[in-house]
Amino acid sequence: MTTGHAFIATSLDGFIARLDGDVNWLMERDDPSEDHGYGDFIADIDLIVMGRGTYEKVLELGPWPYDRPVLVMSAKLSEEPVPAALVGKVNFTSKQPMELMSELASKGVHRVYVDGGRVVQAFLREGLIRDLVITVVPVLLGQGRPLFGEMEADVDLKLVSSRSFPSGLVQSNYKVIG
Amino acid sequence: MTTGHAFIATSLDGFIARLDGDVNWLMERDDPSEDHGYGDFIADIDLIVMGRGTYEKVLELGPWPYDRPVLVMSAKLSEEPVPAALVGKVNFTSKQPMELMSELASKGVHRVYVDGGRVVQAFLREGLIRDLVITVVPVLLGQGRPLFGEMEADVDLKLVSSRSFPSGLVQSNYKVIG
Repeated sequence: MTTGHAFIATSLDGFIARLDGDVNWLMERDDPSEDHGYGDFIADIDLIVMGRGTYEKVLELGPWPYDRPVLVMSAKLSEEPVPAALVGKVNFTSKQPMELMSELASKGVHRVYVDGGRVVQAFLREGLIRDLVITVVPVLLGQGRPLFGEMEADVDLKLVSSRSFPSGLVQSNYKVIG
Repeated sequence: MTTGHAFIATSLDGFIARLDGDVNWLMERDDPSEDHGYGDFIADIDLIVMGRGTYEKVLELGPWPYDRPVLVMSAKLSEEPVPAALVGKVNFTSKQPMELMSELASKGVHRVYVDGGRVVQAFLREGLIRDLVITVVPVLLGQGRPLFGEMEADVDLKLVSSRSFPSGLVQSNYKVIG
């Protein structure tokens, strides 16, 4: 079985980026001397799934940062070749979450890092997220790209742990219970 | 000087009530054996300001729960008399936040509990909130009445403290720094 896992930062009012994709507000508030647990999180991950927005933002921010295979969910990109520099590191897919997770299961992929607002929302709606690590940044942006979106039913969560950092980040780990 | 203070619970996706005002999802997840600090918070409060939505919800939920004077901000209600049972406990006002706080300052009111999504938003936009205690309930509702709203500029916050409860609530105390 393949499970989805989210690890993502938001403003206190629930935005993962400004409307234009800007994440400087997040970078500015990151204290590199603090260990926010990304290393421990990614160590158990087999593959990363993200949307086109996140993929393009990552390309823009600098050198390719991932040492895990990345699958970009995008009907548009799936008609294009993967850039030469990223062959072997990135694949594009037009598949929907359920079909994608079935395919990954058949390939022996166990734990998938689900990244980006729209992709997290789509996977949550399909019940494909097992846990969420949400890091809340102490700022209100007023508007932006939301982490969460509309859903047909409540999603019940169980708090596994929560901790705060001197920088003011509050990180909570939730298990999805249905 | 009069300062505004928020103390409010939201779902993880930022809603304080469902679209129809329902807060059963919140009541169901409240563990009455846990002390979430409301008593300590209210002990320092001189007066409570809320909107019509919160006021009507409170009336609906049972006996009047407040032992502090309550001011309901509502142009509509301000044209009506206060219900007989609430005379001396409640007043209605059509004043806007800034004017209201000036008036309260001139009356020697120091600390105001600002309650309800729209009222918190309006006071935040005017820089009238000094601190926020946000209690996050472990559920995603998908839609509802949001705690936060659009703003013209970022609001920077400083995390004062954060704690979690066995029930799964995560409560963070923020100071508004501009």
